[in-house]
Amino acid sequence: MQAGKPVLYSYFRSSCSWRVRIALALKGIDYDTAPVNLIKDGGQQFSDEFQALNPMKQVPALKIDGMTIGQSLAIIEYLEETRPTPRLLPQDPKKRALVRMISDLIAGGIQPLQNLSVLRQVEEQQRLAWAQKAISSGFNALEAILRGTAGKYCVGDEVTMADLCLVPQVANADRFKVDVSPYPIISRINRSLLALDAFQVSHPGRQPDTPPEMRA
Amino acid sequence: MQAGKPVLYSYFRSSCSWRVRIALALKGIDYDTAPVNLIKDGGQQFSDEFQALNPMKQVPALKIDGMTIGQSLAIIEYLEETRPTPRLLPQDPKKRALVRMISDLIAGGIQPLQNLSVLRQVEEQQRLAWAQKAISSGFNALEAILRGTAGKYCVGDEVTMADLCLVPQVANADRFKVDVSPYPIISRINRSLLALDAFQVSHPGRQPDTPPEMRA
Repeated sequence: MQAGKPVLYSYFRSSCSWRVRIALALKGIDYDTAPVNLIKDGGQQFSDEFQALNPMKQVPALKIDGMTIGQSLAIIEYLEETRPTPRLLPQDPKKRALVRMISDLIAGGIQPLQNLSVLRQVEEQQRLAWAQKAISSGFNALEAILRGTAGKYCVGDEVTMADLCLVPQVANADRFKVDVSPYPIISRINRSLLALDAFQVSHPGRQPDTPPEMRA
Repeated sequence: MQAGKPVLYSYFRSSCSWRVRIALALKGIDYDTAPVNLIKDGGQQFSDEFQALNPMKQVPALKIDGMTIGQSLAIIEYLEETRPTPRLLPQDPKKRALVRMISDLIAGGIQPLQNLSVLRQVEEQQRLAWAQKAISSGFNALEAILRGTAGKYCVGDEVTMADLCLVPQVANADRFKVDVSPYPIISRINRSLLALDAFQVSHPGRQPDTPPEMRA
């Protein structure tokens, strides 16, 4: 790996890693991927080496500018402050608040309830229903909010941090077989975003650690 | 209620509401409290009136400047951008990243796993153990991070958004009888913060909706 180049500790199928990969792609930041397999070897995130980097034992973590940052939204906000073009937060504080509200709704109100480490604590036969409930109750709220905020994308017509959270969460909904037909705005925005280059190159099906059978 | 005065939809014991109450107190923002009782009437957050304000059916929500914002960290970031004094995020982008990482660790990685609506989905005899596990595994990570970032408070010697997340989470730890002796840095910072006026006036024991038997 080239010295000075950012390193993203990532797992191809992690929705939180995907958020950061989209940000890096949109901002044109060249980086190396250090894959952390959340399944193999009992979970490589539990290794001493990785825990020293991110005590939360979660991906993503980004090594950049001489420091390591964990938590996807904190990483994206840092990239926004230090590499502001193109912007992922609108200029107007009220619109920024809407973007952050939607981002936090997904990153704090949906994803944590259906991630791998939580599902492992739920009885196996109940896991699918648990994840579906978390996603659909979050999407009910999100659809209602988007009715007031959406243009072409989640907040108006520019791609924002909220969109970086939306697409990976819809992919998780697919994975857990959630019926997304009650969410026409979420579905429309998701389709528009998936057509953009930055969402394609960052896709779980196209990462260095994507297994051959899951390549897209 | 006075026109133009911000209104905080809040529940005295909600840790996410407390975060925002501390921010309002630190910044000297005068506001009215609209109590939303999460228990009474099957949960007042489920009323049509409140859902129209916050489709997530969660507190806090802040009515301010002609809009309503949900999600505690989005509210605090909005207050920071529109009422910057005293600052709750450091000036240096790297320190800001640390503050946001710690805030997200608590707000996205701990609290959502032990909140009321999730615990209701866990079998009654297992609830305490579930909440304790969520908090202690989060605190293990947090203590390790604070070893590198803390001064008097979570990041250096100024009160930041991270501290607004820390104190209410330690109160939840107390409520769920988590042994905090393995977390000397968390415990020390918590004690220092609780001595500050803004953390006292915002305390769950001193809110308009605090029941008499829980007043502190």
